[in-house]
Amino acid sequence: MSDLFHVGISGARGRMGRAVSQALDARDDVVVAVRFDWGETPDLSLCDVVIDFSTAEASVALARIAAERGGPALVIGSTGFSPEQDKEIARAAERIAIVRSGNFSLGVNILIGLVEHAAQRLDARDWDIEIAEAHHRKKVDAPSGTALMLGEAAAAGRGRDLADLRSPPYDGVGEPRETGRIGFSSIRAGGIVGEHTVLFASEDEVVTLSHSAIDRSLFAKGAVAAAAWARSRGPGLYDMQDVLGFRQA
Amino acid sequence: MSDLFHVGISGARGRMGRAVSQALDARDDVVVAVRFDWGETPDLSLCDVVIDFSTAEASVALARIAAERGGPALVIGSTGFSPEQDKEIARAAERIAIVRSGNFSLGVNILIGLVEHAAQRLDARDWDIEIAEAHHRKKVDAPSGTALMLGEAAAAGRGRDLADLRSPPYDGVGEPRETGRIGFSSIRAGGIVGEHTVLFASEDEVVTLSHSAIDRSLFAKGAVAAAAWARSRGPGLYDMQDVLGFRQA
Amino acid sequence: MSDLFHVGISGARGRMGRAVSQALDARDDVVVAVRFDWGETPDLSLCDVVIDFSTAEASVALARIAAERGGPALVIGSTGFSPEQDKEIARAAERIAIVRSGNFSLGVNILIGLVEHAAQRLDARDWDIEIAEAHHRKKVDAPSGTALMLGEAAAAGRGRDLADLRSPPYDGVGEPRETGRIGFSSIRAGGIVGEHTVLFASEDEVVTLSHSAIDRSLFAKGAVAAAAWARSRGPGLYDMQDVLGFRQA
Amino acid sequence: MSDLFHVGISGARGRMGRAVSQALDARDDVVVAVRFDWGETPDLSLCDVVIDFSTAEASVALARIAAERGGPALVIGSTGFSPEQDKEIARAAERIAIVRSGNFSLGVNILIGLVEHAAQRLDARDWDIEIAEAHHRKKVDAPSGTALMLGEAAAAGRGRDLADLRSPPYDGVGEPRETGRIGFSSIRAGGIVGEHTVLFASEDEVVTLSHSAIDRSLFAKGAVAAAAWARSRGPGLYDMQDVLGFRQA
Repeated sequence: MSDLFHVGISGARGRMGRAVSQALDARDDVVVAVRFDWGETPDLSLCDVVIDFSTAEASVALARIAAERGGPALVIGSTGFSPEQDKEIARAAERIAIVRSGNFSLGVNILIGLVEHAAQRLDARDWDIEIAEAHHRKKVDAPSGTALMLGEAAAAGRGRDLADLRSPPYDGVGEPRETGRIGFSSIRAGGIVGEHTVLFASEDEVVTLSHSAIDRSLFAKGAVAAAAWARSRGPGLYDMQDVLGFRQA
Repeated sequence: MSDLFHVGISGARGRMGRAVSQALDARDDVVVAVRFDWGETPDLSLCDVVIDFSTAEASVALARIAAERGGPALVIGSTGFSPEQDKEIARAAERIAIVRSGNFSLGVNILIGLVEHAAQRLDARDWDIEIAEAHHRKKVDAPSGTALMLGEAAAAGRGRDLADLRSPPYDGVGEPRETGRIGFSSIRAGGIVGEHTVLFASEDEVVTLSHSAIDRSLFAKGAVAAAAWARSRGPGLYDMQDVLGFRQA
Repeated sequence: MSDLFHVGISGARGRMGRAVSQALDARDDVVVAVRFDWGETPDLSLCDVVIDFSTAEASVALARIAAERGGPALVIGSTGFSPEQDKEIARAAERIAIVRSGNFSLGVNILIGLVEHAAQRLDARDWDIEIAEAHHRKKVDAPSGTALMLGEAAAAGRGRDLADLRSPPYDGVGEPRETGRIGFSSIRAGGIVGEHTVLFASEDEVVTLSHSAIDRSLFAKGAVAAAAWARSRGPGLYDMQDVLGFRQA
Repeated sequence: MSDLFHVGISGARGRMGRAVSQALDARDDVVVAVRFDWGETPDLSLCDVVIDFSTAEASVALARIAAERGGPALVIGSTGFSPEQDKEIARAAERIAIVRSGNFSLGVNILIGLVEHAAQRLDARDWDIEIAEAHHRKKVDAPSGTALMLGEAAAAGRGRDLADLRSPPYDGVGEPRETGRIGFSSIRAGGIVGEHTVLFASEDEVVTLSHSAIDRSLFAKGAVAAAAWARSRGPGLYDMQDVLGFRQA
């Protein structure tokens, strides 16, 4: 490995793939070795790391091949993995370094830590947690992957799994809110880049922890930072908390 | 009718009934003539106006009796009326003055006018509308009545009925947002008094029109102002836009 | 004048000049006839309209020459004019069409109308007005020109001039807020594109009217729309309220 | 000391003194032993703890007398102390337990920890910090004491003193924002109970940490919790971080 590092882009023609390409162009320590999409067979021997924003299916296939070869390292930003696909990624990570995240921004990853910390200290009997997010009109999944990551952090702060605490959206006439549950709400409108808010409310006060993305390039830059980190890492399944050094030993 | 006016309180033991009682105590031009709840038979001859925060059923019964007697005027803040109950209230309003509203605050009623105006001018092909609201953990209906009033104003600005444009909450993986529809989202947490936001978003910009209640007494004070207005009014079904003089002749 | 219209760009090398250039490229009914900066002598006979984001001094010089020639029309987005310079622009507008604005976005210009309307209806004895804005770290003037436009709309709604009502930022220990005045506050941080909020608060409730810019191209697109409107207009000094058809006859 | 504890209220006729009195009435483990104001000589022997929302001058006098007597413990919520008065309080705290804070709410004290944590991790070269607050129209000091506490936490996270980093409000035409400084802005309007926002912004994203008070009783309840904690504490100068157990040993 020279000082220059060689990056492949998987899902190169997608919106995030193109943004990653632009973010790589802005750095002088990187060579884009290969760009490919689903159905193409790239020469992985040219790459130190592949940045992959494709689909769950394509990511699993890529991870399997890379693991068999013993490299390159992978940075995976695809979403929507099934539990079985999750396991395949984990198996590949026994042989290569894989950084996987639903959100590569520094700000969101800081927020995740703050949310867990606050949830730990604000008693669930007194403090309700709600997670609200807003995105552009073309986004087809709700809540966003990042909202779910924030929900998992809140649940972890309370020593629980999100699956046990997550409420469906409030709609219609029903029972009062159940103590301890975590609510989610979503807005879809115009060109909103991405807003996330975690709200803790007691009878008398509200603490709000929020993130707002100004520019989509943010996520591509974070994935490139993850690639720079991953190329000198041993096998393992990592996330942005590792990349940013937030995970305590 | 003397300078002092005589008010009855229906639903007197409820949260809003008690708040109305406090708001009346703060004025020196009002006498509370009678307080009653469902199942009690008040002497309506003592009242110029009755302020009624009870249930749809109790309100309809009260309106029927008042209409038969030719008075008193009514200020109705109950919610959850069926279409049939709506018609009964309208029938009673042929004989007495009835002010009916889902929200008696000046600020919300100003907002309704602003929302209609903005919706009229912001082309539905470019601008998506979303309505978000947050209330305390005990509120059992979602979206709030006020959110629906704001949604109706937005739909009216576009020359449409809300029933045709209203979207269910975004949840799960689906299609992108449909152009022209109006989305709703709700937060329930702690002691939040009441927040409403109407968001208009295009590809490049967002206009947000919001209302936040600082103190619950707000709504009681508005109902009392409606009562002062209603007592000298002829038969008719009015709302706060009339009371505040916002309805153009 | 053909169906194609010919636009000159003044201040072409500046940030807004380049954004205007991009916005023009995206349209197929426009030819960029000439680009120039301060010190250059453009051939104005090539242009139907000039879009000018330069400096007050350069704008005044351009307006004088265009007025002498009897054209082209001008769209002026420069700011920081002295009262004397204002008069020179007004004189030029006796001979050519000039659209001048501190903000060319549709959303901000809608907001201006809503703010005036709300200020008219919310009694100054009960409702305090505050205007808050946030912009990127490089912006050197505060409050923003748009915040001042919003302040003028609020003052106009109360039948007053902003100059008589504007408060300096709250700082230190002093007297309580004076009834009827309009406060301004500014945030400067990171890459924030531009946020403006007009807040009306009484003892019991808050109405907030806000605008948020998602993408800077917004302002360039608005200036181009103003240019398309201006080229077929007779002499006069116009603003975006005219362009958008919001000014009542 | 019995299970019942005996509390004195200093500044008893003030707004906060009365709120403390109400908060104490709601508990069944407390007896209000004595209420007093500046100029009155209370019998301190009746009290386990005195809760003091008076003036800096009155608080210093009270602390001196209590220290000479060797009790009671004090909870001081007065603000506006000079450096010399700060020292007098510290001297008294060598003999008795004193809890002193600018804000007794759990939420604000959680926020202080989160702000310090975030400021530590978000590089000052990339991330600007701004602190915004909003309060009712009668508040005479700006920025609020709580805003300054949050600013101190942000500065501490960066290993600096707030005095070195604090910017005056942005007003007029000047230089661009200086890297590393902390800006403050204030809104005063209507009956706003109290809002605080700490904003971290880079070129591409914004992290916002906020607190909103729903009800003023919040602060009184927190002071009472501090009193319950203080009565069994040895001499020392404490703050709410100690009371809440947030201070690491």
